[in-house]
Amino acid sequence: MNAAERGGWVAVVGLGPGGEAQVTPEVTALLAEATDVIGYAPYVARVAVREGLVHHASDNRVELERAAHALSLAAEGRRAVVVSSGDPGVFAMASALFEAWEQGAPAWRDLDIRVLPGITAMLAASARAGAPLGHDFCAINLSDNLKPWALIERRLRLAAEADFAMAFYNPRSKARPDGFAQVLDILREICGPERLILFARAVCTAEERLNVVTLADARPEMADMRTMVIVGSSTTRLVERGSGSARPPVLYTPRWAG
Amino acid sequence: MNAAERGGWVAVVGLGPGGEAQVTPEVTALLAEATDVIGYAPYVARVAVREGLVHHASDNRVELERAAHALSLAAEGRRAVVVSSGDPGVFAMASALFEAWEQGAPAWRDLDIRVLPGITAMLAASARAGAPLGHDFCAINLSDNLKPWALIERRLRLAAEADFAMAFYNPRSKARPDGFAQVLDILREICGPERLILFARAVCTAEERLNVVTLADARPEMADMRTMVIVGSSTTRLVERGSGSARPPVLYTPRWAG
Repeated sequence: MNAAERGGWVAVVGLGPGGEAQVTPEVTALLAEATDVIGYAPYVARVAVREGLVHHASDNRVELERAAHALSLAAEGRRAVVVSSGDPGVFAMASALFEAWEQGAPAWRDLDIRVLPGITAMLAASARAGAPLGHDFCAINLSDNLKPWALIERRLRLAAEADFAMAFYNPRSKARPDGFAQVLDILREICGPERLILFARAVCTAEERLNVVTLADARPEMADMRTMVIVGSSTTRLVERGSGSARPPVLYTPRWAG
Repeated sequence: MNAAERGGWVAVVGLGPGGEAQVTPEVTALLAEATDVIGYAPYVARVAVREGLVHHASDNRVELERAAHALSLAAEGRRAVVVSSGDPGVFAMASALFEAWEQGAPAWRDLDIRVLPGITAMLAASARAGAPLGHDFCAINLSDNLKPWALIERRLRLAAEADFAMAFYNPRSKARPDGFAQVLDILREICGPERLILFARAVCTAEERLNVVTLADARPEMADMRTMVIVGSSTTRLVERGSGSARPPVLYTPRWAG
């Protein structure tokens, strides 16, 4: 009897940025079928406790071990859901799961593995601020845990020259606290001081805070580990709402360019 | 009495790539409060008919008129929802709405305008194929309706040099049928013939079809207007599942690079 015949499966799902109103029905339905939920502790804590569901909470930065654990549970016939915040395919658990799968036991190759998308942080932040990613854009993970800093800098320079809007995940790494200051210096050099930058902290939670400034006024400490940073392209605009509106100004990138 | 006091509002919401199981609860809840739903006819048709909800279906390529219509309805005190497929902030209606708003009647500045995110096509396609966008990536609209072709080509070359994975929206424009063939030629030149490319058609619908080939084997006619195209980075891998699995091979980009 192979793993698939045992009836086990593993799914990597996205819980969205924070609010339960942004979890898709297919993710909710799959969690209701699961026997095990696996992930970084704050994400596992978002899944309600119920009989028949085992919670496996782990520390940050143990992605491969966590992935292997989920795969071994599935191989035993269990229904394992690995939870990510946001979308699992964007700087989250989906790639880690496939790395562990490819390197792991040959029997795992038969496993039923699915990925269910979620609302990723940059699109939630974009929606809250207006539409800064409404034209061509790129997404860069600024953490240098798994890639050399020189590659981050090279990508950043080419993306700025291409006039992409840019979304930065993990803007401030504890291991390299000066990295984000260097990023801001490079952006000021290529994009100029007037370019707009959004700091969106804890989007779609009670602690949400949005802050739009120019690169001239941007400071590294405006970002922390819960902040999504979005830099506009040359056409991105900040437009005040009327005095009758309590909402912050609108940050958006028009559909046209050139 | 200003527009806000009249109680009207406008929201731009994402319906996700196709399946109702991927529409977020907050979008479903907002549609239940709406008096008017506005959008491109196939998207408006996805919203169930009910008493008290007026359906306003329009043709493609009338985004600014559609946006102005929604804004004028909100100014009259109605609750207008503009529907986009995928995420409204990614090559969809959110930017068009803010363009119409900024250029429009001064009274519109007070309007309550919200954007609710959705599962965008590239992340749905990525999840179905594995995790090709698991590392740094960019999203480019290949339509040259609103930007010069030279800018598309420049962004494409810089993105390829930066070794981003790339997601292409609107790969084949009727107005420029040879554009996508040129894109493939440029990619072959910079990324080489072995680079992997995914054609994901009608993702999350009954007609879904995924096709992964190398750039050497890629043909322009593999994409149509319903196809999302994703080009891997230099590290993107295609890994066969076991003979016990009926699913197609996994396309994924590891978390590491360099």
